Amino acid sequence: MNESAFIESLRALASHPGARGLLDDAAVVEIGGRTLVLTKDMLVEGVHYLPDDPPADVAWKLVAVNLSDLAAKGARPMGVLLGYSLGGHAWDTAFVAGLRLALDSFGIALLGGDTVGGNGPRTLSLTALGEAAGTVPSRAGGQAGDRLWLSGTIGDAGAGLRSLRGEIAAVDALVERYRNPSPRLEAGEDLAPLVSAMMDVSDGLLIDAARLAAASGLRAVIDLASLPLSEAWMGLLGGALEARLAAATAGDDYELLFAASPELDGEILALQDRLGLPLNRVGALEAGSGLRVTDGGAELPLPERLGWEHR
Amino acid sequence: MNESAFIESLRALASHPGARGLLDDAAVVEIGGRTLVLTKDMLVEGVHYLPDDPPADVAWKLVAVNLSDLAAKGARPMGVLLGYSLGGHAWDTAFVAGLRLALDSFGIALLGGDTVGGNGPRTLSLTALGEAAGTVPSRAGGQAGDRLWLSGTIGDAGAGLRSLRGEIAAVDALVERYRNPSPRLEAGEDLAPLVSAMMDVSDGLLIDAARLAAASGLRAVIDLASLPLSEAWMGLLGGALEARLAAATAGDDYELLFAASPELDGEILALQDRLGLPLNRVGALEAGSGLRVTDGGAELPLPERLGWEHR
Repeated sequence: MNESAFIESLRALASHPGARGLLDDAAVVEIGGRTLVLTKDMLVEGVHYLPDDPPADVAWKLVAVNLSDLAAKGARPMGVLLGYSLGGHAWDTAFVAGLRLALDSFGIALLGGDTVGGNGPRTLSLTALGEAAGTVPSRAGGQAGDRLWLSGTIGDAGAGLRSLRGEIAAVDALVERYRNPSPRLEAGEDLAPLVSAMMDVSDGLLIDAARLAAASGLRAVIDLASLPLSEAWMGLLGGALEARLAAATAGDDYELLFAASPELDGEILALQDRLGLPLNRVGALEAGSGLRVTDGGAELPLPERLGWEHR
Repeated sequence: MNESAFIESLRALASHPGARGLLDDAAVVEIGGRTLVLTKDMLVEGVHYLPDDPPADVAWKLVAVNLSDLAAKGARPMGVLLGYSLGGHAWDTAFVAGLRLALDSFGIALLGGDTVGGNGPRTLSLTALGEAAGTVPSRAGGQAGDRLWLSGTIGDAGAGLRSLRGEIAAVDALVERYRNPSPRLEAGEDLAPLVSAMMDVSDGLLIDAARLAAASGLRAVIDLASLPLSEAWMGLLGGALEARLAAATAGDDYELLFAASPELDGEILALQDRLGLPLNRVGALEAGSGLRVTDGGAELPLPERLGWEHR
């Protein structure tokens, strides 16, 4: 069974309204007048990280990818539960040091978890618990006519992975984006009251935009001419169409993708300075289904591969 | 690094009071005047279940072992998040059917989770969320002079595992206890206001009693003459000392082990009828540290192996 068929088969079990029909990255549980947001993401050795990635970076990434889901729901992290497969002493020790650094950086604590003896590639899992102050944006709230926005720059983590694989030159700034992603927690909190839909980009801008649009019952249009590319990316890979297409289908960036009414353009743009984070319009939502990709308005054929699946 | 050394190294990261110093099976988060209990347990193929165990039973067990942790904290389950490694179509389909049966049986829903592509033995993880109505018993509250009590019968699941491995004759009732454990949710809720400490027995009565005593700063005494053994156990393995020792060091029973003042004997015994579940005194807590094992009061040497570790 592939991932989407499996999730489809689980949907009947997700009868709690907080499960959001499994269409979202996080569950939302209202309790005692407060709003809890819960998410659970796993990293598998050789699938989500390289076997020779430094263990401290793997720990950071495990925390960051989960907090990124909280960020996309505008939630402030409270703590995490760790599911850990024991390995060698040196790896475990370095992992704990990295975990400590990550938890301290985000001001949260370890709440509990489980440790198992491993056999085979490690599977690490984390459950993150956060609290939202107000409405929790879903993927499903987008409206036709909304603009699609993206935080930060796109493609860097994918380029970092290609660097580590020796496919392109090694550039520290790109490798750093792959190994030490920054969940956009502050931006998520500020944006949550403004957006009609929000998610994080983990599998690639095109595939994730298509998912947001599908959850909203709409079509996404992404204009590749408007992609925000970093200096490091431009220096190494440039801005030709092929490079922009690679950036739009790479994963692991953990930027925020969100839909908002054009009336809010000014308010959203004004957030950039306060956040120290670029927020760029990369497309729109329109009536229909699926995805359109344009380059400065000119229609492009859909690429065969929109991003990562089955991960 | 072994499990206890690893958990020790994590303790400094568990600064939230709800983490209970990682000495408990669950985290306790107070929010909006309500008390949430969170737990996360993993099952690894070949470690916690047999590769040819029916997938629906593995799903049941994954739910049951997590709800057992909630039961030990007197919490009522609210929902779960699933971490799943995809495998073959037939296995995945049967797993979902078993998950559905388990969630329906316990009246809870799937809230979310993550699905990954697997490579190597499956690692399944679950996070269970529950709510406690009052005080949440920990492992650490035991008092010298408290009696130690056990729900149900002990050793059955371990005998079921030995049956499946062909080491002893196959007895359905025992295999059933191994594959389909019953978390003692109702008992946990009723007992929570009475006990001074409580946990579930997952790794063996002796090792888990030693853990409860250590968390309480005391010594546990377990009297093997008082072990509650099932009819199925007695029929197959009998009640000689060696058999009772095997029952006290077998894992996977998911019964409740709890400490309570002798003044509460009557109140606890009175619960049995209502619950339809035996509650038996199996020992006591006393000043000191470690564990003593007796047989009808006569001191026995400590067995080398008290139960399962590093799981």
